Amino acid sequence: MPALRTALLQSSGTPGSAAGSLRVLDEAAGRAAAAGAGLLVCPEMFLTGYAIGDAVARLAEPADGPGSAAVAEIAVRHGLAVLYGYPERAGDRDDGAVFNSAQLIGPDGARLANYRKTHLYGCFERTWFTPGDTPVVQAELGGLTLGILVCYDVEFPENVRAHALAGTDLLLVPTAQMHPFHFVAESVVPVRAFENQMYVAYVNRTGQEGEFDFVGLSCLAGPDGATRVRAGRAEELLIGEVDGALLAASRAANPYLSDRRPGLYTTLG
Amino acid sequence: MPALRTALLQSSGTPGSAAGSLRVLDEAAGRAAAAGAGLLVCPEMFLTGYAIGDAVARLAEPADGPGSAAVAEIAVRHGLAVLYGYPERAGDRDDGAVFNSAQLIGPDGARLANYRKTHLYGCFERTWFTPGDTPVVQAELGGLTLGILVCYDVEFPENVRAHALAGTDLLLVPTAQMHPFHFVAESVVPVRAFENQMYVAYVNRTGQEGEFDFVGLSCLAGPDGATRVRAGRAEELLIGEVDGALLAASRAANPYLSDRRPGLYTTLG
Repeated sequence: MPALRTALLQSSGTPGSAAGSLRVLDEAAGRAAAAGAGLLVCPEMFLTGYAIGDAVARLAEPADGPGSAAVAEIAVRHGLAVLYGYPERAGDRDDGAVFNSAQLIGPDGARLANYRKTHLYGCFERTWFTPGDTPVVQAELGGLTLGILVCYDVEFPENVRAHALAGTDLLLVPTAQMHPFHFVAESVVPVRAFENQMYVAYVNRTGQEGEFDFVGLSCLAGPDGATRVRAGRAEELLIGEVDGALLAASRAANPYLSDRRPGLYTTLG
Repeated sequence: MPALRTALLQSSGTPGSAAGSLRVLDEAAGRAAAAGAGLLVCPEMFLTGYAIGDAVARLAEPADGPGSAAVAEIAVRHGLAVLYGYPERAGDRDDGAVFNSAQLIGPDGARLANYRKTHLYGCFERTWFTPGDTPVVQAELGGLTLGILVCYDVEFPENVRAHALAGTDLLLVPTAQMHPFHFVAESVVPVRAFENQMYVAYVNRTGQEGEFDFVGLSCLAGPDGATRVRAGRAEELLIGEVDGALLAASRAANPYLSDRRPGLYTTLG
C-alpha cells in the first residue's frame, strides 16, 4: 500500500518578497526532507504574500515563470515534491487575467499540476483575481492521487465531492484563513475528509497581514475524521502520515460514495 | 422575525410497543409545551422501535394510520407540532413496500409533511425498507420553512444542500445513530448547519437495542456552526431556540449559497 509522509508549512513567508519566501521554503524543505517527507505543502499565495494589494498584479507570473523554476530547484535539491500558492498571470489569455493558483512541483522538478482557485472569497479577491473554471485538477505522486483546491473552495461540499468522485486520495488545500472563521479549520476540514473518505492537508498562513488576521490551525485530517496533526497559531512545520492501507480500510467501512443516489441530486449542478 | 422554540426528545420510547412509545411522547409533549416549545422532534422509528426485526412489517401503517391519529391527538392536546419516525406501509402502492418515514403533525392535528428516507443504511435497513425517491420534503410552521431528512441522509452533503437551495430554515433529522459513529453527531451535523446556513435538529435514540448501541448526542446546531443544546448518552428532553433574526444575519455574513458556481458541479447529479 502506498504511503506519503507529508509536511505542512504553516508560515506567511515574506509578504511582498518572493526571494524572502523562497528562503523560508528552502529552509523548511530541508527540515521536511530530513524528517522523511515526500511532499511539502505551503499556504495560499505563499510565494508573494496574500495581503499585498496591487502588488498581486505586479508580482504575478506564468505557471512556468521564475518562481516555479526556483521552487523546482529547491524540490530537486531536497528530493521532495512541493505545492505552493502564487498569483498566476495567464499565458494562455491576453486579457491580463491573474488567477489565485497553486502549483505542484515533483521531486524531479517537473510541474505536475496547476490549479486556479474557482471560488473567490470577498471583495479583496474579486478585485485582484479572475476565478478559474476547472474544478478538479489532480496529479499522481507515490502511488496516490493528489488533488488541489484553494481556501474558500473547500468550504463548498460540491468541490470536495467532485474530487472524491474523481478518485482523489489526498486533497491539498493551501489557505489564507482568517479570524473569526476558525470553525472552518477546526470542523469543516475534518468533516470533508470523513464524508469523502480521503485525506485533507489544510495549510494556512498565520498572524496579522494588512487588514487580515490569519488563524493558523493547519491540519492533516484523515478519512476516519481524526486529525493527524494540528498546528496552533504560530509558525510551524507539521509532519503527518498519509496511509494508503488506512484509507482503503476506512473506505470499506464507510461506503459513502457507493451509497450515493446521483439521480436525486439533480438540483445541485 | 420568526422564532420557534424546539424540543428534542432523545429517547428510544418502548421498542415493539406503539402504545408505550405514545405514552413517552405524551409525557414529553407536556413538558415541552410547559417550556414554551412549539415543536417536538422525536427520533427515527420512534413510534415502533428501530431494532424490532420482522415486526417492522407487522407494525407498519399508512401515513394516516392509527399511530398518526394518536400523535395528532397528543399534538392538539398540548398545542405543539410533533415530528415522529415510524415504518410506513405505502397506501399508494400494492407491492407491500415499507418506508422508513418521518411525519410532521401540526398543533391543530393536521398532517403537514411526510418524508420517506432516501438513503438506507446497512443490511438491516435494506432488508426491511424500500428507499423513498423524493429528496426534499418541506412544511411551513411559525413563519419558518421546515425540512425533513432521516439519519444517514444527513451524512450526504448533497441532501442537505438540496434543502438549502429549496429554502429550508430548520432541518429536522430523526436518527438512530450507533456506536462508533459519534463523529457524525458531534462534527458532521454542526458543519451541515454552517455550510448550508440553516438550523439542524438531530434527534437520536439512546442505549442498547438489539445489536445496536445508540450514542445519543442529540443536538440543535445553528447556522454559525455553534451547537445550541447537546445531549449526553442518557434519555433527555432538550429545549433550544431557532432564531430567525440570527439566521438572517448569519446568511448575510456567510453567502455560501450565492457564491456557489452550479455550472462547475455537473459531475454530482
